[in-house]
Amino acid sequence: MNEKIWTAALLIIGDEILSGRTQDKNVAQIATWLNEQGIRLAEVRVVPDEMEAIGRAVNALRAENDYLFTTGGIGPTHDDITVDAIAAALGVDVIVHPEARRTLETYYAARGQEVTDARLRMARTPAGADLIPNPTSGAPGIRVGNIFIMAGVPHITASMIQGLSGTLEGGRPVVSVTVGARAAESEVADLLRETEASAEGVSIGSYPFQDDAGYGANFVVRSRDGAQARACADRLAAGLSALGYQPVDGGIRTASMH
Amino acid sequence: MNEKIWTAALLIIGDEILSGRTQDKNVAQIATWLNEQGIRLAEVRVVPDEMEAIGRAVNALRAENDYLFTTGGIGPTHDDITVDAIAAALGVDVIVHPEARRTLETYYAARGQEVTDARLRMARTPAGADLIPNPTSGAPGIRVGNIFIMAGVPHITASMIQGLSGTLEGGRPVVSVTVGARAAESEVADLLRETEASAEGVSIGSYPFQDDAGYGANFVVRSRDGAQARACADRLAAGLSALGYQPVDGGIRTASMH
Repeated sequence: MNEKIWTAALLIIGDEILSGRTQDKNVAQIATWLNEQGIRLAEVRVVPDEMEAIGRAVNALRAENDYLFTTGGIGPTHDDITVDAIAAALGVDVIVHPEARRTLETYYAARGQEVTDARLRMARTPAGADLIPNPTSGAPGIRVGNIFIMAGVPHITASMIQGLSGTLEGGRPVVSVTVGARAAESEVADLLRETEASAEGVSIGSYPFQDDAGYGANFVVRSRDGAQARACADRLAAGLSALGYQPVDGGIRTASMH
Repeated sequence: MNEKIWTAALLIIGDEILSGRTQDKNVAQIATWLNEQGIRLAEVRVVPDEMEAIGRAVNALRAENDYLFTTGGIGPTHDDITVDAIAAALGVDVIVHPEARRTLETYYAARGQEVTDARLRMARTPAGADLIPNPTSGAPGIRVGNIFIMAGVPHITASMIQGLSGTLEGGRPVVSVTVGARAAESEVADLLRETEASAEGVSIGSYPFQDDAGYGANFVVRSRDGAQARACADRLAAGLSALGYQPVDGGIRTASMH
């Protein structure tokens, strides 16, 4: 079975993430959404608000993946340089996109305000780009080639990706089934290895935790074939029972997991 | 002033982050800790639990930075392949580190348990490595060259980096001063640009938010020179006042910031 696996990379442009000031929330929501589209998130990079760092990452990641998503740096201020950096990386000009300009004019006119030079920065795109609608605020996202340039504020990012749902070519989503047990990982390592090896196209991840009730681990069985994942998880649960543990289908929820 | 800027990269090895299952917590805590050591976090990458992806990222990031930290994939199960991947990337053998073996033997003996083959996996290191103490659980972290191989479970990561505090060469930490205002970014964009341009070695980041009280933005003034950052933030606050806004020193706290 030579099924194509569609991949995407995510490039987060953000001094505020690298300084530790802001806790990222975009990786998890974009990863979950991508899987629903049948696209695998293959790599994430976080780079500072610097032209060269952005350009190098863009050119590496767009070549290696079917899609590249970027977040951050598309607002009206001096530190918003994503459009300039990506245009430079692609070797194209930056233009004021006519449709983006109209969108901003309509948005601000409805609020009795003008489109100032600073606001017009949000209508700038690399030449040859299309717009990604932004239902939340006036400034649109941008699609150029296989690159999707999105806002960094998580609820705006969310509204942009929701608008893209179903529009991207992808394959089968990965299905995951979680089995938890109050077992030390090291005591079930052989079982995990053997169970994974017995099922083609299935991977098992092991995630230990410790909470007030003691230690344990959640075992996440992943496959593009839902029936395979389910069957493998059932075999794993049976194996855990045979070793004297009480497997919990759906995994064990614990405060230290997240 | 030709002050050396020490940089680090962070490589997160984790299918669970890329699948959206787990919300990362290591970037923010490692970024904050690195800055206290006078080291700038210059890049973060998240890659899957795959030998080749790990190896390529390790070789790129260790060459470009003074330090490389990795998190994840050093437990006892089949999906813990970080040590093998890094040894392969460095072109060295994997050995059972005698001191790590003794640490594990002591740890499990105190609990009346044996060091099984699975547990012994946690004593494996690239040849030529030193250990990073792990006060939280038995399995140590590993230092090899400029690479620091750490656990992925956030509270264990935290105890490993705390143990490294003060041991790494670095420069001056970046000091940041935040000024908040209930202003639209686009209305203060010129002020921000001019204020940043007027102060050497100072950067200003602009982070918009929206909450129940309306919209606003926090402006983060950063510099290695604390007096410069303070003076620049004061000029920015004066400029905001002159435009009719009420600047808030320390920034505006809002639920949507994080």
